[in-house]
Amino acid sequence: MIQTPYLLFLGDAPDQLAAKVAQGIKDWRPENAVGQFRMENCGATVGLHDMTLAEAKAAGAKTLVIGVANRGGVISPAWKEILIEALQMGFDIASGLHNLLRDENDLAAAAHMNGRSLFDVRIPSVAYPIANGKKRTGRRCLAVGTDCSVGKMYTGLAMDAEMNARGMKSTFRPTGQTGILITGGGVPLDAVIADFMAGAVEYLTPDNDADHWDHIEGQGSLFHVSYSGVTMALIHGGQPDALVLCHEPTRTHMRGLPDYQQPSLTELRDLSLQLARIANSACRVIGISVNTQHIAQDKFEAYLAEVEADMGLPAVDPFRQGAARLVDALAEI
Amino acid sequence: MIQTPYLLFLGDAPDQLAAKVAQGIKDWRPENAVGQFRMENCGATVGLHDMTLAEAKAAGAKTLVIGVANRGGVISPAWKEILIEALQMGFDIASGLHNLLRDENDLAAAAHMNGRSLFDVRIPSVAYPIANGKKRTGRRCLAVGTDCSVGKMYTGLAMDAEMNARGMKSTFRPTGQTGILITGGGVPLDAVIADFMAGAVEYLTPDNDADHWDHIEGQGSLFHVSYSGVTMALIHGGQPDALVLCHEPTRTHMRGLPDYQQPSLTELRDLSLQLARIANSACRVIGISVNTQHIAQDKFEAYLAEVEADMGLPAVDPFRQGAARLVDALAEI
Repeated sequence: MIQTPYLLFLGDAPDQLAAKVAQGIKDWRPENAVGQFRMENCGATVGLHDMTLAEAKAAGAKTLVIGVANRGGVISPAWKEILIEALQMGFDIASGLHNLLRDENDLAAAAHMNGRSLFDVRIPSVAYPIANGKKRTGRRCLAVGTDCSVGKMYTGLAMDAEMNARGMKSTFRPTGQTGILITGGGVPLDAVIADFMAGAVEYLTPDNDADHWDHIEGQGSLFHVSYSGVTMALIHGGQPDALVLCHEPTRTHMRGLPDYQQPSLTELRDLSLQLARIANSACRVIGISVNTQHIAQDKFEAYLAEVEADMGLPAVDPFRQGAARLVDALAEI
Repeated sequence: MIQTPYLLFLGDAPDQLAAKVAQGIKDWRPENAVGQFRMENCGATVGLHDMTLAEAKAAGAKTLVIGVANRGGVISPAWKEILIEALQMGFDIASGLHNLLRDENDLAAAAHMNGRSLFDVRIPSVAYPIANGKKRTGRRCLAVGTDCSVGKMYTGLAMDAEMNARGMKSTFRPTGQTGILITGGGVPLDAVIADFMAGAVEYLTPDNDADHWDHIEGQGSLFHVSYSGVTMALIHGGQPDALVLCHEPTRTHMRGLPDYQQPSLTELRDLSLQLARIANSACRVIGISVNTQHIAQDKFEAYLAEVEADMGLPAVDPFRQGAARLVDALAEI
């Protein structure tokens, strides 16, 4: 686990989009961040107090989180002086960039010299077991998508937030680097060795109280040929009791695969449920989460009503409408 | 690629079963081995000429293959003197053991000093791409199983051998360490990073002549929750035109998972075909390969006839009957 609270490092982010990771932390775990650190030419803000390293340290920050994605995922030479100073002042550093902190000799040396930790959250830090398929106590909900990048992480975080607000027992279980940085822990599933994928998901979602829900962050899609094996491991390692179908209705083909059609929600429902029931015969589909960002404000509700009527399941856009109706449906099973 | 021909190292194998890898090479690629090397207390033979290192060298052997599996997969200290001498004499060494040759300091040093290579075939040696899903030329056949270890490798090797005997264009494409050692190359799929599994299978089965068949070695099972993600990557990365269903009818539960029932052949057929058609809409199931080793000699043919009638597909045990009828079925599509 990465130690919280964080100082969010926005560096020289050219624009707001480049600060997506920091924004996610601010949106979903504001209690995890004491402030933001911006270099002089920074073009982004997540609306937290600007702090120096010393101010953040005084405010209790334990870890400097790289909350900015450079083009190419590199660790910019312009950041180095600040990152090394942070290590000297006693911060750990965490990053989800492709290029690893540990591979930067000057950072590795400074961390070693000051007894600090570098967290590269794209790389597994645990030797996960092979899945044993044993039934676990507690309940689990998994978001599955018609495609990649349709809002599965957002759906899980929104449902978790709604359940926490209601005083229900709930934990968001990240399986990708952004989710791991938001919560401070998780499994970077796409970087796990094939034989241990399902075991990593079992490890991530252990026995729990009978009325506790894990919201497992989905990855890929059963219909996306590049990543479907990862999705499969989530379904079989996660043993979900409930599935939420995630969809982005304006795509013309599978992401990155121009020759592949999107499946219908009916196809996603049937295939996901059939596969999930191999591991958990009681699994049910409880609702539909639609990313309607490309549908106009005066049209998206009609679209959702249509999906809801077609599928006979609650259909909501959690970004526009919140996740309350999905949680209502979950609470009923 | 590992250089052939091999000298098969049986070491101090306590019994015949321990020499399974060497036996596989002898059975399927006898032209890949010039002889066998046995230590004084060796309890196994694969029926090749016993050779000293010098005799094998003179016979043209390029690589010493560890054809024996110790308990625990370790590299026995008793072997070391011979292995180091082999490196000094100009042999490469290849191994599929869990413990890696490269992690043995004395072997690594001897290989370095003599300019030889150590091949640990459990570990990928290539940075595989992410799958792009593009249609490739040539044709591909994949064995899928109701469970793990039901004869998928054997089925692929037997079909490949039958096609080669008929003068048809065919290549066996290994995805596990035994298959890799048998043929000298392949992808150790269970050791590949999750994101690159399907891409590794694409890499293994590239564009080919229109009338060429790849026989892709299957792994795991869609119904085995520990490994189903690996199977999924084979189905979507392999884009098979043909599937062979593999089955061992006497299992009482999934291998290693006492709480999980075996699926029926009908369930395997329907699920595999549905998933395969996401990547290749023309995919067909062409036959059934049954491992009847636990059915008596006077009963297995009746059992196969029953399966054949039930499923409407050729059902054979390639070990007892050869793969001719499976190849006949493949030649028809």
